[in-house]
Amino acid sequence: MTESAAGMTGARALVETAAAGGVQVCFANPGTTEMPLVSALDEVPSVHPVLGLFEGVCTGAADGYARISGRPAMTLLHLGPGFANGIANLHNARRAHSPVLNVVGDHASWHLPYDAPLTSDIVSLATPVSGWVGTVGSAARTSEVTAEALAAARTPPGHGATLIVPADFQQATVTGPIASMPTPPAPTLVDAERVERIAERLRGGSRAVLLLGGGALNERGQRAARRISEATGATLYSETFPAAAERGRGLPDLDRLPYFPEAAIKALAGAETVVLAGALEPVAYFGYAGTPSLLAEPGTVHALAEPGEDGVQALEDLAKALGAKAASPLREPAFPDGLPDGPLIPAAIGRIVSALLPEGAVVSVEGGTCGYPFFTASAHAARHTTLTNTGGAIGQGLPAALGAAIAAPERQVIALQSDGSAQYTIQALWTMAREQTDVITLIASNRRYGILRTELDRHGGSDRGPASAGLTSLDDPALNWPALASGYGVPAQRAETGDELARALRRALAAGGPQLIEMVL
Amino acid sequence: MTESAAGMTGARALVETAAAGGVQVCFANPGTTEMPLVSALDEVPSVHPVLGLFEGVCTGAADGYARISGRPAMTLLHLGPGFANGIANLHNARRAHSPVLNVVGDHASWHLPYDAPLTSDIVSLATPVSGWVGTVGSAARTSEVTAEALAAARTPPGHGATLIVPADFQQATVTGPIASMPTPPAPTLVDAERVERIAERLRGGSRAVLLLGGGALNERGQRAARRISEATGATLYSETFPAAAERGRGLPDLDRLPYFPEAAIKALAGAETVVLAGALEPVAYFGYAGTPSLLAEPGTVHALAEPGEDGVQALEDLAKALGAKAASPLREPAFPDGLPDGPLIPAAIGRIVSALLPEGAVVSVEGGTCGYPFFTASAHAARHTTLTNTGGAIGQGLPAALGAAIAAPERQVIALQSDGSAQYTIQALWTMAREQTDVITLIASNRRYGILRTELDRHGGSDRGPASAGLTSLDDPALNWPALASGYGVPAQRAETGDELARALRRALAAGGPQLIEMVL
Repeated sequence: MTESAAGMTGARALVETAAAGGVQVCFANPGTTEMPLVSALDEVPSVHPVLGLFEGVCTGAADGYARISGRPAMTLLHLGPGFANGIANLHNARRAHSPVLNVVGDHASWHLPYDAPLTSDIVSLATPVSGWVGTVGSAARTSEVTAEALAAARTPPGHGATLIVPADFQQATVTGPIASMPTPPAPTLVDAERVERIAERLRGGSRAVLLLGGGALNERGQRAARRISEATGATLYSETFPAAAERGRGLPDLDRLPYFPEAAIKALAGAETVVLAGALEPVAYFGYAGTPSLLAEPGTVHALAEPGEDGVQALEDLAKALGAKAASPLREPAFPDGLPDGPLIPAAIGRIVSALLPEGAVVSVEGGTCGYPFFTASAHAARHTTLTNTGGAIGQGLPAALGAAIAAPERQVIALQSDGSAQYTIQALWTMAREQTDVITLIASNRRYGILRTELDRHGGSDRGPASAGLTSLDDPALNWPALASGYGVPAQRAETGDELARALRRALAAGGPQLIEMVL
Repeated sequence: MTESAAGMTGARALVETAAAGGVQVCFANPGTTEMPLVSALDEVPSVHPVLGLFEGVCTGAADGYARISGRPAMTLLHLGPGFANGIANLHNARRAHSPVLNVVGDHASWHLPYDAPLTSDIVSLATPVSGWVGTVGSAARTSEVTAEALAAARTPPGHGATLIVPADFQQATVTGPIASMPTPPAPTLVDAERVERIAERLRGGSRAVLLLGGGALNERGQRAARRISEATGATLYSETFPAAAERGRGLPDLDRLPYFPEAAIKALAGAETVVLAGALEPVAYFGYAGTPSLLAEPGTVHALAEPGEDGVQALEDLAKALGAKAASPLREPAFPDGLPDGPLIPAAIGRIVSALLPEGAVVSVEGGTCGYPFFTASAHAARHTTLTNTGGAIGQGLPAALGAAIAAPERQVIALQSDGSAQYTIQALWTMAREQTDVITLIASNRRYGILRTELDRHGGSDRGPASAGLTSLDDPALNWPALASGYGVPAQRAETGDELARALRRALAAGGPQLIEMVL
C-alpha cells in the first residue's frame, strides 16, 4: 500500500501507516499533545479506538489483544507521565514478546527546550520496555518512521516499539507517500543439524525434560511434544508463565514448571537433557540465599528453538527425526459429575471454573491464590487458551482479559484474579462495560497479599509485627467488590460456597457481557 | 545519631538511617524483594508504614506529605515495574521540589545476571524523576548510601532520591555504625547586590509584575510581596501550579498566572520588569502554533530568588530596600450570606466550598472543571493551604490529599477533583479509609475530559467524529461514584444542586473521617 499522503496531517499519515501495517485497534488515553492523532482516528475508521481510564489498562489490553489475535496492537499515550503509567504492563508485554506499537505524543519540537511542566525524558522511560525507541524528527518522515517502528514490533518473536511524536509534526501537512510496510519475517526455521544433535541425545536414552514456551504451546507444538515424549520417555513441561497456552481436552496435560525454585529444581533433577522449545533456560523467579539461580543441572540445557525461531516446526522435525509415531489416544478422565460445595477453597474454585468453562474460552490468570489450582483442574476442561502474567508486573490480568475479548469477540473470556492484583488496574472494568465485552471477572477475595505472607515466612519465621501484618493485609476495610464493579457499570454477584459460585457463574455465562463475581475465601 | 548497627540487617540499618534523617512515614507497596525492609519496619516503630494498593498512591501521598509537613517522605516500591507505577506522581513531586526518598528493592545482586522475569533497568526508569539515583553496592555501605540519598533529597529546593537495594544486602547482617545525617542546608540567602539591582529597577518606576512561587507563597512571602506592590504598583501573581500556597482571609488575593498562553501573555503584557521570587520564568504549558513559548516580553525577566534560594527573605529584603511601609489593612469583603442554589455549576461549587471551608484546611485541587472557580472564590475564605498539580501528571490530587492528611491529622483536607483525573489513582480512597484520614473528596462529575474537548476545539474546529467524541467522554457508562467510594469503605453522598452540596458538605465535615461527595454537573 503506497497511497499518497498528500494533504493529510502527519498524525493521519501515522494512523494510515499503522492501519496498513495491520493495526486494527488503538488502546488510548490521550491528552493535549495527542489531539491531532485523536482527530486522525476520526478519519481512519478501520482503527477502532478503545478508551482506558488509566494507561496501564491500555498497555495491558494491547498485550492481551496481541497474544490472542496475533496482530500488532497500538497504544496512544500522553507524554512521559502517561507512558510511565503504562510501563508495568509493557514490561509484561516485553516478556510475552507481544508486538505492541506505543505512540506517545510530545510537546511541539520548538517548545521542548523550555522545560514546560510536562516535559520529561521519554526515551529514558521507554528504553527498558521497548525493543525499539524512536522519535519522529520531521513531519515529512512520520510515515516512514512509523513503518520502521511497526516492522520492529512485528519482527519475531515480537517486540514493544515506542514512537514519540512531537505535536507540531502531528499537525503539519505532509506530502510524502504512506510508507509501504514489508511483510514481517516469519519465525526463523531451525536447521536440521541442530534438530539432529538433540535427536541424537534423546535417542541415546538420555533422561530428558522437554520445556515448551512461547508459540510452541499451541496445539501443533503440544501434539508434537507428546509424540516425542512417547518415543523417548521425556517429561513435558510448560514454562511457568506462558504468554498464551492452549489447554484442555485433546491436549496433553502439560504441567507448568513450578514457581518456587526448590520445586522446580526437583522437577528437573535427574534430567540429563533439558530441551528448550521456545522457552528460556529456567531461572529462579527470585534469588533465595542457598538456592541456585539456574534451575537445571549445569550442562544439561539444549535449546531446540529460541524465542523468534519456529519452535513448532522444530518439535515436528524432532519428532520425525526420532521416528516418533502418531501419539496414542489420550486418556481423558471424565469430569466428575458433582461439583464441590461447601466453603470456597482454591481447589474447589479451580474445579468449578474448569467444569463450567465454555469451549474456546480464554482464561486470563493472575494471582497465586487460584491460578495454580485452576491450572491443575483445567487439564481436561473444554479447550481453552490460558494467558498468564509473563513479567510479574502486577495488574496485568484484567487488562489482558479486556484486550483478549476485543481481539476475539466470539470467545468467552474469564479473568481469574486475586483481590490484591486486581486493584492495580481496576479501571479495566469500566472499559469492559463500555465495550460490552464478554469478560467474567472472578475475584479470589482472601483480603491479603497471600504470596507476601508466604515470602515473609520464607525470610524469617512467621511472627509478624504490626508493619508486616498491615502491609500484607487487605482487610480493614475489606474491599466491597460488587460495589466497585457496579460503580464501573459491571453487574456483580458474590459467592461464599461452591454451590453459590457454580450458580453465579452459570448466570453470568448466560447473561453475557461484562460480569464480576466476588469469590469470598 | 551514630548508633551502632552491629547485628542488625542491612534493611534495618536503612530504616534506622532514614528515621534518624527525619523520616516518620513510609508509603509502601512492597513485594518479595522488599520483605526484609518490611520486617525492618516492624523493628523501627518510629516509621509509620502506610499501605497503598497501587504505587501511584504511595508516591503522590509522599509528595503531599512532604509539601505539608516539610519533612522528607519515604516510599517503598517493588522492583522496576512497581517503581514505574509511581513515576507519574514522582514527576509531579520533582516539579514541586518535594524531598522524597524512594526505596526500591531489587533482585539479590548475584541473581541479577540471570534476567529473571521481573528484572529491568531501574536506573533508566528512575533517572527522569530523580535528582539522585544510587544502588546499594554492599550490605556494609547500606547506611552510608541511605544517608547520602536522604541528604540529596533534602538539599534545597528538595529533590526525589531513588535508592535501589538488592535483596541480599537487605538481608545481610551489617556491623558498621548508622551513618550520621548532616543537618540539611538552609535555602541559600540571596545577596544584597541582587536585591538592590531589582530594587533599582522598581524604584525607577518600571511597570512590574511580581511572580511568586515555591516557598515564597507562604504567609511571610505574600505579606512582603504586598508591601512591595503597595510601594511600587507592581502587580502580584502566583505561579500557575504552586506546590503549596497559603490563601484566604488576611492574605492578599493573589491570582494564579492564567493557564492558557494567550491569557498569560496578556497578564504580563506591558510589564517592563517581571520579578521572579521562587518561580521559574513563565513558559506556555503546551506549545501552540503561532504563540510563543516564553510568556513574558524578552528581556523583562529578573530572578530575585531561584528555587533553592530563600525567596521569602529576598522579598522582605526587597521590601526594605524599597522603603516599603507596613501594608495597608486588607479590604476583605464579607462573604455573601446566602449560598448559591440551583444546578451545580463550577462557580457555585467554588463559592460553596469556599464558604464552608474550615479554618486551617488543606485543599488539594486537581482538574480544570472546578479548580479555577474555587481559586477565584477562595481569596477571602478561611485561611487554608492549596496544593496543585505541579507537573501535570494526572492522578495527583487524591494521593496528595491523603499524604497531607497523614502529615497534619489536625487539619481538614478537601480533595477537589475532576472525575477523569480521580480515576488514575482511585485506590487512594481505600488508604483514606484504612487510615481514617479527615479527607473529603469532592468529585466534579461532568462525565467528560473537559480540557480535551477544549483542546480539540483549539486544534481544529468543534465537529467531532466518533473517535474524538468517544475518547473524550466518560459517559457510557457513567461512573457511579458513591458505589466506588463505598467499595473502598468511604461513606459517600451525591449532590445535584447548590443546596444539596452545602448540606452534604456540612454533613461530611461534621462526620469527620474519609468522605466522598459526587457533585453532578
